[in-house]
Amino acid sequence: MPRKVEPRLLKGFRDYLPEVMIPRTRLLRAIAGVFERFGFEPLDTPTIEYADILLAKAGPEQEKLIYRFKDHGERDVALRYELTISLARVLAQYSTDLPRPFKRYQMGPVWRADAPGKGRYREFWQCDVDIVGTPSLLADAECLAVDHAVMMEAQKLRPADEPRTHVIRFNNRKLFRALQEKAGITDDAIMADVIRAIDKLDKIGKEGAFRELAAHAGLNKTNLGVIATFLNTMIDVSMGNQVRLDLVGAYLGSEIGKLACQEIATVLKHATEMGVPSERLKFDPTIARGLDYYTGTVFETFLTDAMDYGSVMSGGRYDGLVGVFANQDEPAVGISVGIDRLITVLDEKGILKKSKSSAQVLVTIFDASSAESALKLAQTLRAAGINAELYLDKDAKLKKQLAYAQRKEIPWVVIAGPDETARGEVTLRDMKTGQQQPAKVDGLATTIQGRV
Amino acid sequence: MPRKVEPRLLKGFRDYLPEVMIPRTRLLRAIAGVFERFGFEPLDTPTIEYADILLAKAGPEQEKLIYRFKDHGERDVALRYELTISLARVLAQYSTDLPRPFKRYQMGPVWRADAPGKGRYREFWQCDVDIVGTPSLLADAECLAVDHAVMMEAQKLRPADEPRTHVIRFNNRKLFRALQEKAGITDDAIMADVIRAIDKLDKIGKEGAFRELAAHAGLNKTNLGVIATFLNTMIDVSMGNQVRLDLVGAYLGSEIGKLACQEIATVLKHATEMGVPSERLKFDPTIARGLDYYTGTVFETFLTDAMDYGSVMSGGRYDGLVGVFANQDEPAVGISVGIDRLITVLDEKGILKKSKSSAQVLVTIFDASSAESALKLAQTLRAAGINAELYLDKDAKLKKQLAYAQRKEIPWVVIAGPDETARGEVTLRDMKTGQQQPAKVDGLATTIQGRV
Repeated sequence: MPRKVEPRLLKGFRDYLPEVMIPRTRLLRAIAGVFERFGFEPLDTPTIEYADILLAKAGPEQEKLIYRFKDHGERDVALRYELTISLARVLAQYSTDLPRPFKRYQMGPVWRADAPGKGRYREFWQCDVDIVGTPSLLADAECLAVDHAVMMEAQKLRPADEPRTHVIRFNNRKLFRALQEKAGITDDAIMADVIRAIDKLDKIGKEGAFRELAAHAGLNKTNLGVIATFLNTMIDVSMGNQVRLDLVGAYLGSEIGKLACQEIATVLKHATEMGVPSERLKFDPTIARGLDYYTGTVFETFLTDAMDYGSVMSGGRYDGLVGVFANQDEPAVGISVGIDRLITVLDEKGILKKSKSSAQVLVTIFDASSAESALKLAQTLRAAGINAELYLDKDAKLKKQLAYAQRKEIPWVVIAGPDETARGEVTLRDMKTGQQQPAKVDGLATTIQGRV
Repeated sequence: MPRKVEPRLLKGFRDYLPEVMIPRTRLLRAIAGVFERFGFEPLDTPTIEYADILLAKAGPEQEKLIYRFKDHGERDVALRYELTISLARVLAQYSTDLPRPFKRYQMGPVWRADAPGKGRYREFWQCDVDIVGTPSLLADAECLAVDHAVMMEAQKLRPADEPRTHVIRFNNRKLFRALQEKAGITDDAIMADVIRAIDKLDKIGKEGAFRELAAHAGLNKTNLGVIATFLNTMIDVSMGNQVRLDLVGAYLGSEIGKLACQEIATVLKHATEMGVPSERLKFDPTIARGLDYYTGTVFETFLTDAMDYGSVMSGGRYDGLVGVFANQDEPAVGISVGIDRLITVLDEKGILKKSKSSAQVLVTIFDASSAESALKLAQTLRAAGINAELYLDKDAKLKKQLAYAQRKEIPWVVIAGPDETARGEVTLRDMKTGQQQPAKVDGLATTIQGRV
């Protein structure tokens, strides 16, 4: 007998036990349902690809974190780091086979050899939608509408009298180009530092951001003055979107500034026409979302009663990425749901539908002689679409069977003794209250459906 | 500008484009629904584990095919080769946190560096259910009932007048122990060769199997005589299950032979009580399913009009595996759905529900001035639960929009010109026939639902 191997997990990796997996699976299915309601199609790509494909757009930071190895044929391969690069490959590889706009969603694991920490894993799921092939701002607006619909779906367990509390903060990356022009910053690398500081406003505050910028060797007084005015006058959240937009437009003035404001106004208008209540949409000139990737609309989504958790869903327009494998670029706009963080927030707010069990009812076996009727009963319930678990031991005491239902938190239990069965009845036990009532076998499925 | 990376896939890996992914996703969801109807809970485990965990029960064949590498911390890790070994780890690691029987399903990718070929991939999905912790034959019967229910679900597109055509061929591994005893084969390794030959009967025929056995140096005339009688008298498929079972029991005689026949009869009885029509269950003494793994019930599932594709779902009882990481064994029985092969067979039989699009309707934009009403219309349809795609360009000609619907095979198109909109109407176009009809905006969702 060889020594036993110790059962253990790699750091940064997780088991999803049923009580975690049940709400997770339900939420992922509901989100996929939202995506499909907007006409997005599912796509899946391999988890392992040639390393040069996966690294085609990666920076040194990403390259360091990618799981890369030689396969059995000594090929240089890697595990995918995110999903968008494979989307770009698919669009180049099957270009003419795919309609434009190409609207797809993809959900699946990605891997990063990051330092594991609170909420940070080495294997986690990404959950993306993208619209490729149209520059139309209707696509940007649709992303905001999808974002809102996902948030509504995710919060549907909030009590009816409690308001849905999410807000989508959005901006347009062209605004930063206008700001750069107005501030007279000629070096793009310096502007990148400015954007990075503004992007951190949420964390370090206006004063912190200023301090960081004032200490920057590449910024002069004129540069800093424009940035200060911009931040001081534009980030007052009590202003309405239109007031702020007018203010920003008037201050920045330039062609690119006007274009940015026009785009923001158009996206805002279409998103509300698509049913997003205007109070859910907050134009926020401090939203930047990374540095190189995005070219137009950018947005982040927060639960207003859990702002400190950070954004649970984000995205934007990126018109330069998809072309990395093709002969020409294609305009694209997309969203990524931060599914782990979303689940954590919903859970801590008490609005994640939890359950230890898929079964709505446990069919017990009263004794060996009544096993046959219990088996048939379970089958009848399943045929009616009820998730009905059968207790799988015909010699177990009823007490043990009830304890099993209790442990798995199955809400109803059916008990069918020989006397009741002879009368065409069963006993239906409510596991929450312990109350038992007789119920007719005919129509039992309907009775249970009415109570579940 | 760096040279473009050529978009390409590793051999043995696949992209699932939407027209492949849509039916696949639907089928996987439907199968998960069947599993949940029987009270199985979802479980997920990491794709990467310590190599010694994943290899704890692997033979040299498996070890050769596993993707194994050093991670960033120089740990010896691997990609999972199958799902059962991780289930065994989970049961040892969280033993007291999990109820018994523990019923779980798991669906996800596994990796094998096998030679790619027709229907053989290096990354493919497994789709498993297992019941751990009970020796009750009710659990074996439940696996057959789940198997049958999955096959019914998978074939639900067969025309009403066409019979469902699957058959579950099942056996019990104890029968081979009885045969070994009767034939007087004392060496287990030689018996393993006998079982291997019998298991190939489907492919090489009775004569082929005999030839192989007759040439075996370790088998004498007495051994061969018993095996010949067993095969000659027992594999006539025209016999009913009970007749054959009586025959086998009478011939093998021994304690273990009686036990095997008793188990087979009990499983058969319970499975029919659980609603599996008896003509779907074929007791077949040649079914072996590998060599070491299984200890009792074993079964394979075929579409009778596609026998040559091989088994699409299989499983059995394996009472010695789960304990590999724990201090004691636990009885277990399970099923694995061969999802790729099942999809291939359904597709070739024309009973896979195919679709290039999730959307049931495309809402077109008549012109820029009517965009707002189109956006609102799309929103109304989605709120009513209809998958409604909006055409994302308000300046596109109607012809182009219809061509898009055609290409994506979206069945219905809504056209809302200004005159119709003023009357509270739209035009509903059936993309299959090209017929157009006016429809009221009020109740449009109901009208479309009635036609989809």
